[in-house]
Amino acid sequence: MRLFRLPKSGGIDALQPAEVDVPRPVRGQVLVRMRAASLNYRDLLVARGSIPRGAGLANLVPLSDGAGEVVEIGPDVTRFRVGERVAGIVMQSWLAGTIGLRDRASTLGSAIDGVLAEYVRFEEDGLVPLPQHLTFEEAACLPCAALTAWQALFCARPLLPGQSVLLQGLGGVAVFALQFAHAAGARVIVLSASRERLDHALAMGAAEVVNYAETPEWQESVLTLTGGRGVDHVLELGGPGTLQRSLEACRIGGVVHLIGMADGQAIDPAAILSREVTLRGVFAGSREMFDAMNRAIAYLALQPEIDRVFPFAETRTAYRHLESQLNVGKVVIRFD
Amino acid sequence: MRLFRLPKSGGIDALQPAEVDVPRPVRGQVLVRMRAASLNYRDLLVARGSIPRGAGLANLVPLSDGAGEVVEIGPDVTRFRVGERVAGIVMQSWLAGTIGLRDRASTLGSAIDGVLAEYVRFEEDGLVPLPQHLTFEEAACLPCAALTAWQALFCARPLLPGQSVLLQGLGGVAVFALQFAHAAGARVIVLSASRERLDHALAMGAAEVVNYAETPEWQESVLTLTGGRGVDHVLELGGPGTLQRSLEACRIGGVVHLIGMADGQAIDPAAILSREVTLRGVFAGSREMFDAMNRAIAYLALQPEIDRVFPFAETRTAYRHLESQLNVGKVVIRFD
Amino acid sequence: MRLFRLPKSGGIDALQPAEVDVPRPVRGQVLVRMRAASLNYRDLLVARGSIPRGAGLANLVPLSDGAGEVVEIGPDVTRFRVGERVAGIVMQSWLAGTIGLRDRASTLGSAIDGVLAEYVRFEEDGLVPLPQHLTFEEAACLPCAALTAWQALFCARPLLPGQSVLLQGLGGVAVFALQFAHAAGARVIVLSASRERLDHALAMGAAEVVNYAETPEWQESVLTLTGGRGVDHVLELGGPGTLQRSLEACRIGGVVHLIGMADGQAIDPAAILSREVTLRGVFAGSREMFDAMNRAIAYLALQPEIDRVFPFAETRTAYRHLESQLNVGKVVIRFD
Amino acid sequence: MRLFRLPKSGGIDALQPAEVDVPRPVRGQVLVRMRAASLNYRDLLVARGSIPRGAGLANLVPLSDGAGEVVEIGPDVTRFRVGERVAGIVMQSWLAGTIGLRDRASTLGSAIDGVLAEYVRFEEDGLVPLPQHLTFEEAACLPCAALTAWQALFCARPLLPGQSVLLQGLGGVAVFALQFAHAAGARVIVLSASRERLDHALAMGAAEVVNYAETPEWQESVLTLTGGRGVDHVLELGGPGTLQRSLEACRIGGVVHLIGMADGQAIDPAAILSREVTLRGVFAGSREMFDAMNRAIAYLALQPEIDRVFPFAETRTAYRHLESQLNVGKVVIRFD
Repeated sequence: MRLFRLPKSGGIDALQPAEVDVPRPVRGQVLVRMRAASLNYRDLLVARGSIPRGAGLANLVPLSDGAGEVVEIGPDVTRFRVGERVAGIVMQSWLAGTIGLRDRASTLGSAIDGVLAEYVRFEEDGLVPLPQHLTFEEAACLPCAALTAWQALFCARPLLPGQSVLLQGLGGVAVFALQFAHAAGARVIVLSASRERLDHALAMGAAEVVNYAETPEWQESVLTLTGGRGVDHVLELGGPGTLQRSLEACRIGGVVHLIGMADGQAIDPAAILSREVTLRGVFAGSREMFDAMNRAIAYLALQPEIDRVFPFAETRTAYRHLESQLNVGKVVIRFD
Repeated sequence: MRLFRLPKSGGIDALQPAEVDVPRPVRGQVLVRMRAASLNYRDLLVARGSIPRGAGLANLVPLSDGAGEVVEIGPDVTRFRVGERVAGIVMQSWLAGTIGLRDRASTLGSAIDGVLAEYVRFEEDGLVPLPQHLTFEEAACLPCAALTAWQALFCARPLLPGQSVLLQGLGGVAVFALQFAHAAGARVIVLSASRERLDHALAMGAAEVVNYAETPEWQESVLTLTGGRGVDHVLELGGPGTLQRSLEACRIGGVVHLIGMADGQAIDPAAILSREVTLRGVFAGSREMFDAMNRAIAYLALQPEIDRVFPFAETRTAYRHLESQLNVGKVVIRFD
Repeated sequence: MRLFRLPKSGGIDALQPAEVDVPRPVRGQVLVRMRAASLNYRDLLVARGSIPRGAGLANLVPLSDGAGEVVEIGPDVTRFRVGERVAGIVMQSWLAGTIGLRDRASTLGSAIDGVLAEYVRFEEDGLVPLPQHLTFEEAACLPCAALTAWQALFCARPLLPGQSVLLQGLGGVAVFALQFAHAAGARVIVLSASRERLDHALAMGAAEVVNYAETPEWQESVLTLTGGRGVDHVLELGGPGTLQRSLEACRIGGVVHLIGMADGQAIDPAAILSREVTLRGVFAGSREMFDAMNRAIAYLALQPEIDRVFPFAETRTAYRHLESQLNVGKVVIRFD
Repeated sequence: MRLFRLPKSGGIDALQPAEVDVPRPVRGQVLVRMRAASLNYRDLLVARGSIPRGAGLANLVPLSDGAGEVVEIGPDVTRFRVGERVAGIVMQSWLAGTIGLRDRASTLGSAIDGVLAEYVRFEEDGLVPLPQHLTFEEAACLPCAALTAWQALFCARPLLPGQSVLLQGLGGVAVFALQFAHAAGARVIVLSASRERLDHALAMGAAEVVNYAETPEWQESVLTLTGGRGVDHVLELGGPGTLQRSLEACRIGGVVHLIGMADGQAIDPAAILSREVTLRGVFAGSREMFDAMNRAIAYLALQPEIDRVFPFAETRTAYRHLESQLNVGKVVIRFD
């Protein structure tokens, strides 16, 4: 079988294809023939060495998000059968409840080997079944991007109909958040510097858009749009200097979900205190959240938005494409 | 001005019109010219004497739900201006947070005089502004029926997209619950004995319907429809013998919202324990909930469903119509 | 090794000792040398056949609660080492989050074989480490009785300092609830017909006691003690006719935790609706709750209250003792 | 009657006594003879002009925290009688539920005139009754310092027995938090540079202390004390550079309550994201929270810790004393 490995240095250029034996599942394990994977901004940080990798993983198999089908099961496996379509959970050990001390150490594609391989052996607990209406390419978009959006919107202080959400840009997480929030009856405001993207956001159901190229003090526009109240939720997806404005665009007592890797960005905590805002870090989610999200995606027949699909052999080009930040929606790799 | 009074005995037939002076608002009060009121099943119980009334209210002004416009304000009123369109909160003192010990004692139309009067004097804290797109007749449907549905669905364990809700019938509360749950991306199952009502429910967005005339063991159908899982929420609106089945149709760990006055209906608590179900009594809601609901109604441009509007003079006929239980949606009285 | 088996009929008298081979742990499993077990009221119901057992378990190994030490681990076990002291979780598959559809089917001592055996093989996920200061006899009391009390008090609407809790009797769950609630700064009211037990409750930290033999309308006493407000939480542990009074003793908007197997007891739902009470079924809890509880027990050095310890050979006598309902605290079996 | 006024500039030195007429309560109002007030760090910021004051309040009556007795009530007042002992709520309009858009504009001693006056006229909704066992001096400590500690610990994610809390220093908020958390069965770790204060913390029930003068990398000590887990809650009371360390001392998924005015302190949001921490601004609380706290204080007979009491005439000296930051517990002013 083929896979890609990422040495400790060298970045995207260092990504190397390799050929290894197909592993066999033992008790409690499931062997998955991967059919598609998707890229997240986080994967760029892993390639750059900004996110630490697990001990001993000098040549890491990258990527956390992928989908495929079960081709073999080990003894005593009860949750899956051969032929079922599945996706892996980003943090393999976070099954339900609050995140545990060691769950970060089970992150695919950084703490442990990831899914950029034709066959991956999972513990059966680390998989979820796919919504039936999705292709493998579409399902490969869910584990990190969709679940981060879902956790932010529905798992701490659930978004209610009529509440307002501010999204930054139209990257992978933002597009899912727009779909979820719109389906939940909430009012979505999208921020971007691109007229084309803002039109796209409106077509997808955004109630209002703000062009920050035209309105650098965009937090003022958000306050105006909400009658001076501010939005109930902000998904902080993080360009330079956005967090401070996000705090100001949030209503008294509202929530800012910190998702983007806003490296080294300093904030003035007074903005948190004077508005009694909650700022919370959000990354992926538990299997229980994943199952709940999949029920919503299935019932609502939501369609993940794919920007572009690259063949397995062109993985490096796919990384480069994500790096350009020109994508709307997800960048996907197809295992032929 | 004209109003109706309800003596302690005699039921609906005893409802009497009367003519009194228009009251004047003092400090902190607002005088409202009522334009419409709506009836709830609860008002029939008040008329029958099944719900106790406040001390000294031998001739109660009935009804809790009404809408009108502010015609005069007392000194120091800050929340409203003359000309604003408003509705009263069912429990006048429940402003926010958890219900208080004495809030039940501030219930319009039973504990204190209600809104079946051409002019009503409110404390300014006891009112909310109306969503702009609603007529007075439509807005008069909100205080009890809509807010009970809202509280059930969104205020204890908020309904998420993709979750399932079972509704019984298509009375006032059920129709609002269907609209809210559908707008929130949830899957609604409606139970009724009328083919016509079930068709109407499907047209309004219900995902599935169950005819309990054809399927007396309807809890089995609900389990089948949900793959054996049961629904996340049940709104128990209560005919005879329904509660026990509702508990069985609810998923392990789910919630049954007890709303209907299921007089004297006994249940076997074992059904609660073996499914770890939560059974909670729900009646109207706080002003904070009312404002949140109105934001949703306004943003989504939801349209309350009115079964029939009666002129003020035909109030008794309106009561009789509600008593027939033939209504789909709300029974409204218009103040000409 | 020795164990006890419970045939489908014959009740406690039918309990039979047997001798079988010690099982060996495979991948992911842990072999535990059981040192003590404890009895719950539920075990009497299993013996009577009132609680269904898993398919094929004609001769069930009974009991859900036990503690012991790890004597062997299978390959890839990471959570435990040989020599560690552990207890099993009642529902082996409920690890965290909300209870799942199939978790009931993993209940030790009814759905699957239990812990009344000298050696038990567990999946490693089905165990928790013990608080260090507890003996095996003490730790064997935790899985069902203590965790049910913990879940009721802290896992849906956490009990706050100064809030009030009503407990019925001084059985296994009630004694733990008294210890937890007292340690949490809450005001505990204990109900019993025995002057001796009430004195004991006061000595353990109860703020007030009510003797229902002297005060059959004990809900009135509870209302008086709380200034007419009612208690924030009731643990309904269930003698005949208690649930209706519990609903009346609960404050408007409070919670009644239904724990005891109050067979066939009918209630009038009007009491739930008119007080907007939440009635929830509670049984044991997840591993995440168990770990949180153990941190509290360890930090506070809480001491489970054992009524009496029986040797393994006298298991039937232990069952009889629990059946007498004369115990204060837990009935324990020691594996010599 | 006498009061103090604070001009817009000049700081503490500019505080001026004045003599004005006693106001009379109108409908819904209560006249309170103030008996004691207490100072908060926030009052220093008001005096320095760092916190904006309400429009038109060129000569503000300062201070938010005070206690006294009702000496006259206006018409229709129902919540209080003459002779009752009361305290004002810091944000007069925040009665219950989530904080509202305009509640900050009702803050005593900054947005509106405060309590440093012999008589203060309140709306009846803006007061709570005092726990009976407290003196006026003690009760004057509650509105801001105690309620901020209470809101942090019990109102978003309630602190459970056995959970851990990190407190910084032993100022007004920290001492209350220590008392509340200890009474709730939680494990308290106190951070200070003073050996004497750390001893005092241990005497008050702290489980562990860390001297940051000896251990500048104190977050490492906190992690060690908690077995590498980190604490469940941090009360960030804010010296320079503490927030970043607080984020690191907090467990994965834990909460840092931002309370102190950590002016201009920059943080690296990566610490929030990588530990999935929630950072929330906390200031005082609603009347509903105040009542709940007072029930706890009354039941537990908690004694606010007063550092020193100054007579009314020496108000400026009291401010200076707080400014020195040498106090342990609260600085109080007594109205003779």
